[in-house]
Amino acid sequence: PALWYERAPAEIYAQSFATVAKEARLERFDAGMTALATRVIHACGMIEVADRLAFSPNAYAAGQAALRAGAPILCDCEMVGAGIIRRYLPAGNEVIVTLNNAEVPDRAQAIQNTRSAAAVELWLEHLDGAVVAIGNAPTALFHLLELIDQGAPKPAVILGFPVGFVGAAESKAELAARPRGCEFIALRGRRGGSAIASAAVNALAAGLPEVAT
Amino acid sequence: PALWYERAPAEIYAQSFATVAKEARLERFDAGMTALATRVIHACGMIEVADRLAFSPNAYAAGQAALRAGAPILCDCEMVGAGIIRRYLPAGNEVIVTLNNAEVPDRAQAIQNTRSAAAVELWLEHLDGAVVAIGNAPTALFHLLELIDQGAPKPAVILGFPVGFVGAAESKAELAARPRGCEFIALRGRRGGSAIASAAVNALAAGLPEVAT
Repeated sequence: PALWYERAPAEIYAQSFATVAKEARLERFDAGMTALATRVIHACGMIEVADRLAFSPNAYAAGQAALRAGAPILCDCEMVGAGIIRRYLPAGNEVIVTLNNAEVPDRAQAIQNTRSAAAVELWLEHLDGAVVAIGNAPTALFHLLELIDQGAPKPAVILGFPVGFVGAAESKAELAARPRGCEFIALRGRRGGSAIASAAVNALAAGLPEVAT
Repeated sequence: PALWYERAPAEIYAQSFATVAKEARLERFDAGMTALATRVIHACGMIEVADRLAFSPNAYAAGQAALRAGAPILCDCEMVGAGIIRRYLPAGNEVIVTLNNAEVPDRAQAIQNTRSAAAVELWLEHLDGAVVAIGNAPTALFHLLELIDQGAPKPAVILGFPVGFVGAAESKAELAARPRGCEFIALRGRRGGSAIASAAVNALAAGLPEVAT
């Protein structure tokens, strides 16, 4: 062929993860968090996000155990759900996205908040011990923390990766500073996004199964 | 409430886009590309990606016209499709993702390439005048260029946003250096991703309808 490029999936994964291992600062992570940081970096192409991960010491283990026990995964938008690799889930875990439920627009009006925040109120019955993955809306993370303050059940782990210029950095700083007794993993600052949130879920589910370790 | 944060969607969008306008270098863009760059930045939380956008001068207009004429949108993965805001599409345009078609694994074996590349071969009947949005796999972009070299129909515009450490920068550099007569918009380097690719489609479809302009 006229164009040369790497075409073998196993080789592409191996080279990708080797580049992360070579370039990223991973020394502060245990094995689980190393896998998670590697997948997060791989999802966004940015080595330096490793330096901006905030997390509670037991977060990876808690998320991994929750998935193995069959916990559902609550996502703030369809894109996060679409990025979760179903064959990696250890217990056929349910992936729940309530953002487009019919009652969400009216509820958003009623609580004077965004649709993303209103959608979080529909998580309540699933929240106890769940894996929460927020990859888009700062208001979803803020409102989850408010609901926990008001007595909502606690998830097993909160994966906080909202993105953008209004509330993203602030919501993740709030989570990291006052996690309300929850395990959490978050990317500080403006950066985040659905691909990163999905990558974090995939890491809790399976580590790095693409490479022999 | 104990937590203060911005809850009004219109205000969140307005503040977000105002931050982009204040911080990003947008002078080199016309109105269409300004809208596209703004949505791309908004999707990833990184002002500086504006400086890394490569594009052909008529790319935005060509993509906008194609969507208005009813062109389909060909995406390399489900996440890109999930991020396209359907109500913004001007002609109920079809969003096509072939990655999970049943014949893809066998075809990948046959062509000794990735599933993402094999899925591009299933685009052929839709390719003429389409909007192509690649937000994940460098091999999808490389293989699309190979197919065009072999006489495949040309899309109206190629949105090149594959991400990662193996082939992402190279495939986008190839697109920008030798676009094969195609209109294109791409983010140089390792960064990219499905949220950015979706944002580019949404910009072609509707500009920035969230703010009065």
